[in-house]
Amino acid sequence: MEINHGLLIVLSGPSGAGKGTICQELLRQMPNLRYSVSSTTRCPRPGEVDGVHYHFRPRQEFEAMLASDELLEWAEFCDNYYGTPRFAVEQAIQAGLDVILEIEIQGALQIKKRFPQGVFTFIVPPSLDVLSERIHKRGTETEEVIQKRLAKAVQELEYVSEYDYVVVNDEVPVAVDKLKSILVAERCRVKRKPFVFKGEFINETTFT
Amino acid sequence: MEINHGLLIVLSGPSGAGKGTICQELLRQMPNLRYSVSSTTRCPRPGEVDGVHYHFRPRQEFEAMLASDELLEWAEFCDNYYGTPRFAVEQAIQAGLDVILEIEIQGALQIKKRFPQGVFTFIVPPSLDVLSERIHKRGTETEEVIQKRLAKAVQELEYVSEYDYVVVNDEVPVAVDKLKSILVAERCRVKRKPFVFKGEFINETTFT
Repeated sequence: MEINHGLLIVLSGPSGAGKGTICQELLRQMPNLRYSVSSTTRCPRPGEVDGVHYHFRPRQEFEAMLASDELLEWAEFCDNYYGTPRFAVEQAIQAGLDVILEIEIQGALQIKKRFPQGVFTFIVPPSLDVLSERIHKRGTETEEVIQKRLAKAVQELEYVSEYDYVVVNDEVPVAVDKLKSILVAERCRVKRKPFVFKGEFINETTFT
Repeated sequence: MEINHGLLIVLSGPSGAGKGTICQELLRQMPNLRYSVSSTTRCPRPGEVDGVHYHFRPRQEFEAMLASDELLEWAEFCDNYYGTPRFAVEQAIQAGLDVILEIEIQGALQIKKRFPQGVFTFIVPPSLDVLSERIHKRGTETEEVIQKRLAKAVQELEYVSEYDYVVVNDEVPVAVDKLKSILVAERCRVKRKPFVFKGEFINETTFT
């Protein structure tokens, strides 16, 4: 990894934890941050724009990307493929931009294998009670679905140990500030500064 | 380590990098931060206050502390002992306070063995040229001493890889903000949240 490369931030967390809101707020506040647009074989829904919400691709094209290892992670849901294009992410990072990905756990673990230098962050609600309250307040799901979601949230927490950071989303601005601090800190990590490892502290070297 | 324990921040870096200024500024800005006062067998200099600048201790007492493993690190310079009392650091941390230590590399490495959960941060000047400029500007040292210092700075950089973070001190306020971000990030690290590891995400659990 080069000195001036951007960071890849991977956000996961239970449904209702508030990943989406945090992600949008970070994108609003950080001009150097880019959202990674996924590719999918499913058809666009009304209002969805190709290249903004997803890259909509024919099945054949997606399978060709799979075959040539062009995806950082992928999965199949309901007979459709979903995946994260590797090239766009790598290109942005090499250009010094940070990239953010909002992704479920299995996808995050695939990315961790291929891109261990990513910043893997798990967003959690302050408690299961708060999560339950938030989902109930929306009023969009049946009690059965809500209970399934809560059970899934508990299961998902088993994977927190695979992540680098856990951020409690109690108040969005506080959680956003924590994520911004995490990015500042990660840029200071010695393991991201190979030139220091080599002791190349010569007159020409700058550390910024 | 318990959930609400404070952090131990260990600052090292070449003479002239600005550790002292950064440390003072952090103490001014963070009411929860405490400075670890070293113990020494040397005599107080004019103006030095026992318990503020150092804990001044008779040689016999210091050797008793050594024998009973009461120091996180220690060294002998010019026939005097210097060391970091373990109890005061541990007591503050257990009370939820953060503790900052400004210490040379060998001491930091001793602490790392005993207290690996510390946040080990290396402060560097933007470049060797800037370091040279800063030392020259002070006008307090001969050219020979300056050259020795610069050579030592280069040597010391070999040890950066033992640290977690490297912070460039170009402008003090920026460096201070980076250190504050590092502390926020460290509090979010999964490895510092053993309760999450155990999957104890029950109704009563809060993550803050």
